Amino acid sequence: MRGFRIVVAAHGALAAGFMASAEMICGRIEDAATVALDPEDSPEGFRDRLLEAIGDAGTERPLLLLTDLAGGTPHNVSLVMARRLPNAVLISGINLAVLVEAATSVDALDAESVERLVASGREALVDLGQLIATRAS
Amino acid sequence: MRGFRIVVAAHGALAAGFMASAEMICGRIEDAATVALDPEDSPEGFRDRLLEAIGDAGTERPLLLLTDLAGGTPHNVSLVMARRLPNAVLISGINLAVLVEAATSVDALDAESVERLVASGREALVDLGQLIATRAS
Repeated sequence: MRGFRIVVAAHGALAAGFMASAEMICGRIEDAATVALDPEDSPEGFRDRLLEAIGDAGTERPLLLLTDLAGGTPHNVSLVMARRLPNAVLISGINLAVLVEAATSVDALDAESVERLVASGREALVDLGQLIATRAS
Repeated sequence: MRGFRIVVAAHGALAAGFMASAEMICGRIEDAATVALDPEDSPEGFRDRLLEAIGDAGTERPLLLLTDLAGGTPHNVSLVMARRLPNAVLISGINLAVLVEAATSVDALDAESVERLVASGREALVDLGQLIATRAS
């Protein structure tokens, strides 16, 4: 069983999209939540919903915050939050591989497992453009 | 102006989520479409909708296919399609950075620019877990 809570924070429909798609792949994901930044949102309104989604995680028990893009409001607000929580880790720029790996993880949320999550996401990001080169040769 | 069509193929709500979120960041994205694999979809039904989304791209003019996860049906069907189209490139495992970079690109869809797209996606995938170590020191 996973030993940490997962919260996905992203622009608009992307947060829920990530979660729904991950659940199509690995089934129901427990102890997880999503927070969407809507176009009319203020950073403060987003922060309040993020706090609610985090619940008691990040202090008593580990929290993995996943954001869509460094520099965006969901990421910036999450980063401020992560800095205040003694037991929170943040990964930005996630793809579906990171979420599926994290959701199915049974590892502790330590530096090594977080590094593995990032590596799995980067390895999943692959250019198959060489198909053209292969065909042309 | 971008010189290639973009089609995002993904599980469930993720494809539309990517597109809507990218548009929150960089405004309306022209010459682009999304295709979602629904839980009750057959690969054939998905392929037909993918063909429709691609339109005349991939042959007469360049096509960039973006998929959520290698091994999943959206990716597998897209890969078969990309192999048949003389002017198609596929990147799997995308994050929001790849889509925003691609949508705002004015480069030709050559090997070099595709490599840059993948690199930008990987660079955006960052672990900020070291925050904890910084605080502890």
